[in-house]
Amino acid sequence: MAKHDKSEGFVTEITPRSQDFSRWYLDVVRRAELADYTQVKGCMVIRPYGYAIWELIQQALDRRIKATGHVNAYFPLFIPNSLLMKEAEHVEGFAPQVAYVTHGGGEELEEKLVVRPTSEAIIGTKYHDWIQSWRDLPVLINQWANVVRWEKVTRPFLRTTEFLWQEGHTAHETEAEAEEETLKILELYRETMETELAMWVVTGRKSESEKFAGALRTYSLEALMGDGRALQAGTSHNLGQNFAKAFDVTFQARDKSVQHVWGTSWGVTTRLIGAVIMTHGDDSGLILPPRIAPYQVVIVPIPRGNWQETVLPKAREIQQQLVAGGVRVTLDDRDMYTPGWKFAEWELRGVPLRLEIGPRDIEKSSVLIARRDTREKLPVPMEGLVDRIRQLLDDVQRTLFDRAVRFREEHTHRVGDYETFKQTLEGRPGFVIAPWCGSADCEAQIKNDTQATIRNMPMNASTPSGHCIRCDSPAQAEAWFAKAY
Amino acid sequence: MAKHDKSEGFVTEITPRSQDFSRWYLDVVRRAELADYTQVKGCMVIRPYGYAIWELIQQALDRRIKATGHVNAYFPLFIPNSLLMKEAEHVEGFAPQVAYVTHGGGEELEEKLVVRPTSEAIIGTKYHDWIQSWRDLPVLINQWANVVRWEKVTRPFLRTTEFLWQEGHTAHETEAEAEEETLKILELYRETMETELAMWVVTGRKSESEKFAGALRTYSLEALMGDGRALQAGTSHNLGQNFAKAFDVTFQARDKSVQHVWGTSWGVTTRLIGAVIMTHGDDSGLILPPRIAPYQVVIVPIPRGNWQETVLPKAREIQQQLVAGGVRVTLDDRDMYTPGWKFAEWELRGVPLRLEIGPRDIEKSSVLIARRDTREKLPVPMEGLVDRIRQLLDDVQRTLFDRAVRFREEHTHRVGDYETFKQTLEGRPGFVIAPWCGSADCEAQIKNDTQATIRNMPMNASTPSGHCIRCDSPAQAEAWFAKAY
Repeated sequence: MAKHDKSEGFVTEITPRSQDFSRWYLDVVRRAELADYTQVKGCMVIRPYGYAIWELIQQALDRRIKATGHVNAYFPLFIPNSLLMKEAEHVEGFAPQVAYVTHGGGEELEEKLVVRPTSEAIIGTKYHDWIQSWRDLPVLINQWANVVRWEKVTRPFLRTTEFLWQEGHTAHETEAEAEEETLKILELYRETMETELAMWVVTGRKSESEKFAGALRTYSLEALMGDGRALQAGTSHNLGQNFAKAFDVTFQARDKSVQHVWGTSWGVTTRLIGAVIMTHGDDSGLILPPRIAPYQVVIVPIPRGNWQETVLPKAREIQQQLVAGGVRVTLDDRDMYTPGWKFAEWELRGVPLRLEIGPRDIEKSSVLIARRDTREKLPVPMEGLVDRIRQLLDDVQRTLFDRAVRFREEHTHRVGDYETFKQTLEGRPGFVIAPWCGSADCEAQIKNDTQATIRNMPMNASTPSGHCIRCDSPAQAEAWFAKAY
Repeated sequence: MAKHDKSEGFVTEITPRSQDFSRWYLDVVRRAELADYTQVKGCMVIRPYGYAIWELIQQALDRRIKATGHVNAYFPLFIPNSLLMKEAEHVEGFAPQVAYVTHGGGEELEEKLVVRPTSEAIIGTKYHDWIQSWRDLPVLINQWANVVRWEKVTRPFLRTTEFLWQEGHTAHETEAEAEEETLKILELYRETMETELAMWVVTGRKSESEKFAGALRTYSLEALMGDGRALQAGTSHNLGQNFAKAFDVTFQARDKSVQHVWGTSWGVTTRLIGAVIMTHGDDSGLILPPRIAPYQVVIVPIPRGNWQETVLPKAREIQQQLVAGGVRVTLDDRDMYTPGWKFAEWELRGVPLRLEIGPRDIEKSSVLIARRDTREKLPVPMEGLVDRIRQLLDDVQRTLFDRAVRFREEHTHRVGDYETFKQTLEGRPGFVIAPWCGSADCEAQIKNDTQATIRNMPMNASTPSGHCIRCDSPAQAEAWFAKAY
């Protein structure tokens, strides 16, 4: 609930979530030391505690990306301006957002360089060189990198001028294979977000107006934040042959004809850290799913009597056991803070389990465990402690996911007429499901009337009967609307 | 020795190492698909096989960096020009090499941004904010990132405009602690390079003229490449209070006085991949130390009779066993290439062990193992195969290191007079050890006469008696000279 302010020497509160969600978010990011502002407009520092979360997300994703046959590589940060210009829709989508390097090594450059906003263009030129025959396909490459998109209004993790991400870029023999890859990755993302981040997401296709600049089709994963706004958590694009044609990526097919490859690209970013904060956090601060928590357990020794000779050695012994058992654990043995202060501090930082140990616990050969998610406190015998903690961590992970699912269910509405639709979208109700005719005009008008956008059209929804929520045309798809980040 | 050129359909040679080391290096980089050129001047693509080596080096280093109490974070790519200007020597050292972003989001920027050549400046501004008291110290942060230094002449991995690296930045209470940290990291690097990269390095202090722009003292690790030229493989800098003063990083000390922190910074880069190539490679191509080899073993099935029903299943079974045993292995089951072609291909790519299996091997319940380092071929029984392969991998690793040590010993000369010194430095003799007076004039004159530079002054060398190799002044240190990359 509170954090000691080092420079002032007193405890300062974070804004309650219910009072001002946006301020609460910024308070949590700063007080939990996840990120910090810099003198560079729109750019943040990801602090060690925030970066440790990113590393765990990276590892979870990288493992899955490699297990599905992809390999990592690294392409240049700079892209000659003329290359970005080659794919017409791509340049239109990205040109307003790019940063340009115009001088290097003391001289003005002959051609200005774009700091990559995404890497389709530079990768396209290499796929042109590397791919000759159908035997070279598929090419399944992923890159972990920083990218830059000039933003006017920024918010840590959610929207920053520079951010970190992974971007997959693949090339295939057939349209069907590219579509299969696009959906395989969408599913990989979904499973990762549910399993590791304990987030619920809806997967579906983006509307034409919301698709990636240069793609044939964009699919997205949309999550629901604690304030009822949706957040795009990842995207997977079927690029068709658009970039292959722009960069002349051809191959000799099995029938000896020369054809353009079929491409995909897909990415998730450090935005996921923001999504985790806004999905699970509460008035006391962060709540981290154990699988991506830098510390899954914090041990707080209770300083009674000669605790440094009695309690502390036992606390260290337990720490060792947990480390040996593969649990990420920290021991807060600082003597200038009270246990109460430490409890609040580690709650703010979202550590899933707190383990308290004092002289009386040692007498009873047990410890006290406090769960961050439910705030339950339970005595646990030292015998079998590591196994019990592992079970509890699994339980916290499951509870957070179940809670996210329940929250989503309680904040999803299905409506049949436009008046109800508009009424429902006053405030931040979550998702509103409604039939849509597929026209960009209706989509724009709805956005104008309600500020809500089509998040996506879920994968397995059957085409609705009846007509569009806004006009009289027949419905083409069931769309999920929401106000979004 | 050779690689199939996909586009031309014939086998092309790589230049023999003995004939033209520089061409051999470029051929290996390209044909082993480690890196490739791009349309961006001085920037390379690190291809999947090269990047996999980098990932293994990263993991080995990151594990050690964390085990010594450091944490990772991420700071912005862009640095306002005025910040870079704050430390006088720093700006002098880096200004000629920087790339400037002048436009973003369609507008000219009020202040141009430097694409980071290194991050002391931006990190200094945050340490100013984060550090208040001696209780906040030490701060031990590392960053994995890309950096940009404009280069006129580039060579893949060794010198490129953009490269990948890790940069540690620490802040300490006392000068002694900063020095201890600087040397701890130097030792950490040495141990990593010897253990993981099987490289021999000499650790020592740089001369004043070769130290990092803004440092108090720079220490380096210098390796010896196969052509007798030295290569700086890593550096660790004691920054003193220079950056703390430039960025006003102060803390309240234990005695309540306000003091500037003592800083260090240290880094190694993707250049290490180049070092590995030039330390271990031979006329047939790359030789990778097993600990950083993407594939430690390649299985080549011998296609006799109905091999796809007999040999291939057995090969797959062995592959499974090796994977289960923690060995990185690939099975080359492509049917359009002959075994001989595959042997040459995987030798070129430096895979430490080749495992051949054909019908007769299966009859004898054994396989044939070929070592890349010694070219020995030995039959190994299938019984206990995984353990035997693990032993062999350890042995290849040790053999490569021993060979590097021997090469260094055979290419290190100790001379007593300037004529012999100059003669010895004709060609590329390796290291030449000589006493030096410590004057920058002598250092510059020696460079002028021989093209050799002082690589460093080793850590534990006793101060030599006698006088400088070039002048009559008393010797201050024993310096290791070499022509260097």
